[in-house]
Amino acid sequence: MLTLGVFIMSRKSWIFTLGTEVVCGRVVNTNAAYLGRRLTLLGFEVLGVVSLIDDVELISAALSLVLRTGPDLIVTTGGLGPTYDDVTLEAVARAVGRRLAVNELALEMIKKKYEELKLPLTPERVKMAYLPEGGVVIPNDVGTAPGCLIKSGETLIASLPGVPRELERMWESFVEPRLRELSARRVVVERSFTVTNVPESSAAAIVKEVLRRYGNVYVKTHPKGHEIRAPVLEVYVQVFGDELGECERVADEVLKILKDGLESVGGVIT
Amino acid sequence: MLTLGVFIMSRKSWIFTLGTEVVCGRVVNTNAAYLGRRLTLLGFEVLGVVSLIDDVELISAALSLVLRTGPDLIVTTGGLGPTYDDVTLEAVARAVGRRLAVNELALEMIKKKYEELKLPLTPERVKMAYLPEGGVVIPNDVGTAPGCLIKSGETLIASLPGVPRELERMWESFVEPRLRELSARRVVVERSFTVTNVPESSAAAIVKEVLRRYGNVYVKTHPKGHEIRAPVLEVYVQVFGDELGECERVADEVLKILKDGLESVGGVIT
Repeated sequence: MLTLGVFIMSRKSWIFTLGTEVVCGRVVNTNAAYLGRRLTLLGFEVLGVVSLIDDVELISAALSLVLRTGPDLIVTTGGLGPTYDDVTLEAVARAVGRRLAVNELALEMIKKKYEELKLPLTPERVKMAYLPEGGVVIPNDVGTAPGCLIKSGETLIASLPGVPRELERMWESFVEPRLRELSARRVVVERSFTVTNVPESSAAAIVKEVLRRYGNVYVKTHPKGHEIRAPVLEVYVQVFGDELGECERVADEVLKILKDGLESVGGVIT
Repeated sequence: MLTLGVFIMSRKSWIFTLGTEVVCGRVVNTNAAYLGRRLTLLGFEVLGVVSLIDDVELISAALSLVLRTGPDLIVTTGGLGPTYDDVTLEAVARAVGRRLAVNELALEMIKKKYEELKLPLTPERVKMAYLPEGGVVIPNDVGTAPGCLIKSGETLIASLPGVPRELERMWESFVEPRLRELSARRVVVERSFTVTNVPESSAAAIVKEVLRRYGNVYVKTHPKGHEIRAPVLEVYVQVFGDELGECERVADEVLKILKDGLESVGGVIT
């Protein structure tokens, strides 16, 4: 079936948002939401997001486990800076079996930035120029620490800073254009609507039937009200495929089936 | 050293925030921040947060891996509802090697809720009463799907819904009181301040020296401005211990050392 083909062809990806401050809840992980959204709209299937404390052994072990499953892409955020607990590239190096070494281009970029203020190249500053051997520098126009792109087997690993405005600039100007070139284009069409007066447990059977019929459709219901006393559901539909027109046609069809089904059990579509 | 003892005694925990909508960035993962914060303040060390798509094999494989490391606690959120993709308790059951079975107390609770509106017990509604054998029901006063507490080896697994107001109520009224009883009390003292005019790469050496001296102190610098042109750092200090007064004394001492050090390289404390 064609629809199965679409899923098999989809590119698998994982996101690692690294940093103790993320894990222990001192910051809300907006980087994960940003990257999850960008990757999904690029046609990547994101399988998981992993946040870990700044522990090089834990991070490299987790990266190794995910690498062994052979995803197309791993994006890491955080841990590229000058401090003792910035250990991401060391963890990446261990996971891919390379050594960390000074990257001359990265060193040049860092040197130039600190020279602006006549600041010397201390060991902490040079640290940011250490990349896994074979890594490609991702320039950081907003901040100081460069990122790194490296291939391990079939998996591309992109490491970016944790500061959102640095991450986002580097993603949009450098990483995403390269992913567009690499990735088989996959169209993603999204729709959503709200239905009141239907408990999620009643919608479940209707959604299940749609998913049985369509292989390239994903439907999720999000309860927003109270399941029994005042049920409100957000219904989200995603259609994947090779061709926009066909995806939109399927999306319209699925939306009609869902709305009709929900109305038949007393739902009010809003 | 006593301080080493504090770390060894700390309880290890992991958070699993489950759901495709979290992974692909349709929602920002506020549940992770909520639980990370609550667990940290309870004296647990949170090692990682894992978000996964609604795939029972992927979730059970990841839970099994983490279980094998022997943490004291795993908290899961999401995937307890009536729909086809609510697979968390099936994944927990597989990971701990138990069968899913109808829990009579859970069934009674669910029945009662739907009887309010004279709604029948469909398979989708009964589904929410299936818990891993040996699991204890966590009542859900806000919504419908009950949670589950289960012990596997030395690890306690608490499974809660993904809807934040249900999760938070169940956490605060049921889970956290039980964790307080179980856990060795560990005191956590937090302090933070802001320093301008010091690049993070200059602060790095000062922080490193403090961490060399104190075993029960965690310091992290968060760059908020521009590393070179307008450096602003938030400096966060956490002190762990058995006794509040001693932790506060250490925190004051560390804060003074950090502030003096940062001022000596031109920093302005605000």
